[in-house]
Amino acid sequence: MVRHAARHYRAAVPASTSPAVLADLLGALAYGELTAFQRLAADSSLAASVADAASLGAMAVAEYGHYAVLTRHLADRGVDPGAAMAPFVAPLDAFHQQTAPADWLQSVVKAYVGDGIGTDFYREVAVFVDPPTRAVIEEVSADTGHAAFAVEHVRAAIEADPTLRGRLALWARRLVGEALTQAQRVAVEREALTDLLGSATDLAEIGAVFGRIVAAHEERMVALGLAS
Amino acid sequence: MVRHAARHYRAAVPASTSPAVLADLLGALAYGELTAFQRLAADSSLAASVADAASLGAMAVAEYGHYAVLTRHLADRGVDPGAAMAPFVAPLDAFHQQTAPADWLQSVVKAYVGDGIGTDFYREVAVFVDPPTRAVIEEVSADTGHAAFAVEHVRAAIEADPTLRGRLALWARRLVGEALTQAQRVAVEREALTDLLGSATDLAEIGAVFGRIVAAHEERMVALGLAS
Repeated sequence: MVRHAARHYRAAVPASTSPAVLADLLGALAYGELTAFQRLAADSSLAASVADAASLGAMAVAEYGHYAVLTRHLADRGVDPGAAMAPFVAPLDAFHQQTAPADWLQSVVKAYVGDGIGTDFYREVAVFVDPPTRAVIEEVSADTGHAAFAVEHVRAAIEADPTLRGRLALWARRLVGEALTQAQRVAVEREALTDLLGSATDLAEIGAVFGRIVAAHEERMVALGLAS
Repeated sequence: MVRHAARHYRAAVPASTSPAVLADLLGALAYGELTAFQRLAADSSLAASVADAASLGAMAVAEYGHYAVLTRHLADRGVDPGAAMAPFVAPLDAFHQQTAPADWLQSVVKAYVGDGIGTDFYREVAVFVDPPTRAVIEEVSADTGHAAFAVEHVRAAIEADPTLRGRLALWARRLVGEALTQAQRVAVEREALTDLLGSATDLAEIGAVFGRIVAAHEERMVALGLAS
């Protein structure tokens, strides 16, 4: 039997990852998890029921667990987690300030759409790092329940009030736009991250990576009932 | 050797607790933990450093764990957690709306002072309920690190800027005042809770309970450097 898994990746999996790449990659991810935790927990108070608040709270707690796993992995490799996260504090804080949800549904869409894009990106990048780091990335990329929860609640809300559809679709586009703005800002400033992609692969492959991330995003919009 | 532990309690420890008492007692505590989790996690984004934010985040996660323990205990006893929490949603939400911290230090003082009073109250009440419920209350009343964290940060801030002392002391008094307002509201509406205290003990004992809670609060104010 011929195995085709990961066949589209041309780069060999490296046995080690440089401290600079490790710091940038996991520093951004760790601070992303910490802010996701803060926002999800805060937004859970917008929920219409205690049960919904508790569900969002459980997802927030899972994000904090991911944060702890990532900072521990950095420390184990001799990288100071605080220093690794520092370059990503301003862009991630800016992202959250620009995309503060006005209500409960916006926060649910944000959690699902934002988390989905982040997870897809990291799963793509994971093939370029050493196996233990890849295992950590895969562990923190596991679905914490956002998907089913978001799909169920957004679909039910649109069914009850079809005018929500256009407004939430616009909101999702704004989220993606703002995420791209901040990602570009990070890409310009952090060479280690862009070098990782650039050295491990070629331009066509980078195009394919982004194509897959966009396609997965479109699938989520379809699942939410927000595809245009 | 004569043992004096818990000697001041005149009531015998009951072998069982009525579902009404269990629902009120743990319902209030569970929703209190859920809102504490939400507020602590949200307030952690006010921290001056990522390390401080993560410390407050870890405390928030511990509060969520307590919420889960309490709702599980209620469900195990055949009490619907949502129904048990419902009467306490309005008073606890009102408390948090009236005491939204304006900055990081106010949120640290709130976490320590509010958590302390709540914990003391529950430890007093725990002697009136059946042993498994008491064990649950003691488990969720364990210090989650608020104390040392708050004392360290508030003292350092006052040392750097002595004008903070008066303002934070005023803030702590406002917290206690608002907590008493909401507690009184609950006491009037929820007979099971007041019956528990009233039937298990006498007026002098109730006075002693409140005396101990006030004394413990004063000790915390001294520890923070906020005693008047």
